[in-house]
Order: sequence, then C-alpha cells, then structure tokens
Amino acid sequence: MPRYKLTIEYDGRSFIGWQRQNNGLSVQAVLERAGHAFCGKKVSMFAAGRTDSGVHALAQTAHVEFPLLIPAHTVRNALNFHMKQYPVVILDAQEVTDDFHARFSCLGRVYLYRILNRRAPPALDTGRIWWISTPLDEKIMRMAAEKLIGKHDFSTFRATACQANSPIKTLDKLDIVRIGEEIQIIAEARSFLHHQVRNLVGTLRLVGEKKWTITDLQNALKARTRKAGGPTAPSNGLYFVRAIY
Amino acid sequence: MPRYKLTIEYDGRSFIGWQRQNNGLSVQAVLERAGHAFCGKKVSMFAAGRTDSGVHALAQTAHVEFPLLIPAHTVRNALNFHMKQYPVVILDAQEVTDDFHARFSCLGRVYLYRILNRRAPPALDTGRIWWISTPLDEKIMRMAAEKLIGKHDFSTFRATACQANSPIKTLDKLDIVRIGEEIQIIAEARSFLHHQVRNLVGTLRLVGEKKWTITDLQNALKARTRKAGGPTAPSNGLYFVRAIY
Repeated sequence: MPRYKLTIEYDGRSFIGWQRQNNGLSVQAVLERAGHAFCGKKVSMFAAGRTDSGVHALAQTAHVEFPLLIPAHTVRNALNFHMKQYPVVILDAQEVTDDFHARFSCLGRVYLYRILNRRAPPALDTGRIWWISTPLDEKIMRMAAEKLIGKHDFSTFRATACQANSPIKTLDKLDIVRIGEEIQIIAEARSFLHHQVRNLVGTLRLVGEKKWTITDLQNALKARTRKAGGPTAPSNGLYFVRAIY
Repeated sequence: MPRYKLTIEYDGRSFIGWQRQNNGLSVQAVLERAGHAFCGKKVSMFAAGRTDSGVHALAQTAHVEFPLLIPAHTVRNALNFHMKQYPVVILDAQEVTDDFHARFSCLGRVYLYRILNRRAPPALDTGRIWWISTPLDEKIMRMAAEKLIGKHDFSTFRATACQANSPIKTLDKLDIVRIGEEIQIIAEARSFLHHQVRNLVGTLRLVGEKKWTITDLQNALKARTRKAGGPTAPSNGLYFVRAIY
C-alpha cells in the first residue's frame, strides 16, 4: 500500500501525549481519525518520538499507509481539513517506499527545552515554557552539560516506567543558549530514555542555581540510580524539534 | 502621590483591548482592579498605546499612582499576585517623577506584525499570528514599505473611527524580514493612527501576492481615502513591542 511520511506540528497542551490511550485524547488518535475520515478505512500512524502529555512538536515525523495512491499534497490538505478543530497540523507529506519506518528508520532525534528565566511569570507563553524566577547561570549549566555528552549509562535520568532494553545511550549534543530572558536547551541523540531530557533539564537547573556543583552532577551520573538525579522538569517546556533519517 | 512606570506583557486574545469598556474585560480593568486590591484605593492606569481587542503586548508601558510610597519590586510582585488568573504580567516597575506620563511623554512606539506564510495553518501559534497560505514575496513587500517611510498624509490607512486631530504622521521605520516561514513587519513612529499598522500590513500583503504593484501602493497613499487602501489585517498578528521615552 502507498506509504506517506508526514511532518507534524502540535500543541501538546490539548493531548495526553502522542500515543493512543484510554484516558483521553492523543495526537495519534486525532491523526488516525482524520485518516479514517479521509480514506474510509482504519489507518495506523507511527511516530519517530512518542511524546508525553503536554509535550509539543515543531516537526514530529510519522508514517501512514493509505489503500490508494493519492498525491502527497492532497494527503496533507485532506488531513488538515479533518483536524481543523484540533491544534495538530501536517506541515508536509511525502510518498515514501515501504521500507521507510518513522520510528525504526530514524537516525536521530532533536528536542528543545525552553526555560523563561525572569521574575515575572509568562503572559504570552503560558503552557509553552518552564518559568524559573531565580537567576540561572547558563554558562555553568553549559559547562555541566558538556560532561553529559557521549556514551553513558543514563539510569540516573531514566523514568522508572522506561521500557528501553538498556540505560546506555549516546548523547550527541546538549547545547545551552540564552536569548534574553529565555534559556534554550537543545538535545540530540539517536534515541532517548523515557523522561531523559526532562530529567537532565531538571538536574541542570540545580547547577544553574548553584545548588549543585558540576562534580555533584558527575557523581549523580556515576551513581546510575534515578534517586541520585534532580527532579523532572515539567512537560510544557519540551518540544520535539525534528527526526533525522 | 508616588508614581510608577510599569512594563507589561499580555496576551490580547483574552481582552477587548487595553481600554476599559462596557462590553467585556480590558487589560486596563484587570490592572486597575489589581491595583485596587493591592492598595485599597481606586487607581487609574494610563498606557503608551491603547491596543485594540486581540492585540498582544511584549512590553506595553503604563503609569499609575499609589497613595503610599512602596518599593518598586513590591508593586510588581503584588500586582502580579492579584492578576494571577489573567494573561497579564508586570515585567518591571520603576518609581518615576510625576512629570512622567506613559502616553504624553512617549517619544516613539514600536509594533511588530507576524505573518505565518506556509500552506499549513498554525498549530502552536493560533491566535498569535496571521496565517497566509499563498506565497508572499517579502523582497517586493520591503521595497514597497520603503515608499511609506517618512511624513505622509496616511488617510488611506486610517480607520474611520480614528480620533486623531490630523492624518499626517511620520513613519520612522517599516522593516520586513523573513525568518523561515514567518514574515515579521516592524513599524516605528512617534504615534500611529487608529488601525494604521494593520491597514498597512493588509495592503502590503496585496503587494507581496503581486496583486498590486508598488505604484498601486503609492497611488493608494496619494488618494488619501480609506477606500483606496487594502483590507485591515487581523488583530491577532499584532504586538505592541515597546514605548520609547
């Protein structure tokens, strides 16, 4: 059956996450319903990153099969028409060969975490950024982040519910930049453990506040137990930026 | 009485505009109620730019008097506490002398207009940007915008309800930049006519779509009648950026 690669933007606030579940509306369910309404058959959507409840996407990738060959721009426009009432849009659709799999073909995943670091809470970006009113030193956070790059046992930053086979991952990038009052943390890896980015951010915050030294962070990593890590940063600051193929 | 200069961020979607009116909730009313709750007396807020319904502010300036001298950071924190349920926050408060007037002392006002120029509608920025799906040539728009800079009779871009004494204004800046799929229009002047920025943007869009030439735009300006101008761009793409003193 013809297979399509979809690039998707969504606002995570409206959803229980990417994956279909019984406790609320998921991004996957909205997309699959739109696909069903469009082609008249049940369809399945597979994503590069199964984001949690509240996590946004600038350009998630998914794939889907339709029973008929349809021009890719028609797929994009028709799905967007059927999802009009939801904050989910198809930015792009492309026909792909059936060896393309959004999740298993993916060579890298990029996430962005946004922190608003000022005394006043956000008025415009509520639910889109983590507000931290105490001053953070992003230079120290950057130095600490460098210690996390590379291949490590990331058990300290792994959710207890994580289903990955191994806690060993290679973190290719963990950049930290300040743009005025906003601190952006960009993380890139082939794959991540469950909550890994949010747990890294929640721990780097302690370093930025100077409650932890860089050595404390290195010791936490070495401890290889979630109890040694800092708290999990809230989901609303996290964005799935893109999948690399 | 001690006077304070306030820098304010707000999300225009929740309000009928800056100014107190009988038909709904205004930014001014939220601020004045917070001021009343804080100091126990009725207070009046005066803004640099009385934004319309749906228009946002990154850094609006207002001034207010309180019956007692209070540290400026307490003014900021207390007002923010009393406005918690609304998308309005005080970014900064400073004590000023009583010859400072947010509106009459203002030497310049800067507005930003955001256009999302892509086939797919926004999922993350709904109500925060004007979605135009047909391709816009921002280079031609920039060339056209240059013809509008300077001192002109802007009657063509003036709302019929405008209460300004004269339609003659000096437009100091009208920059147009594209950042990926987003086109940003930045306008700066000592003061603007009612709807002037939105009418300029709605007309520049016609140039960007090549429905109008630059000469058409120049002729429209010369006609000095609202009927000669393009449509008014929607309020949700407009941001009051800052007031200059």
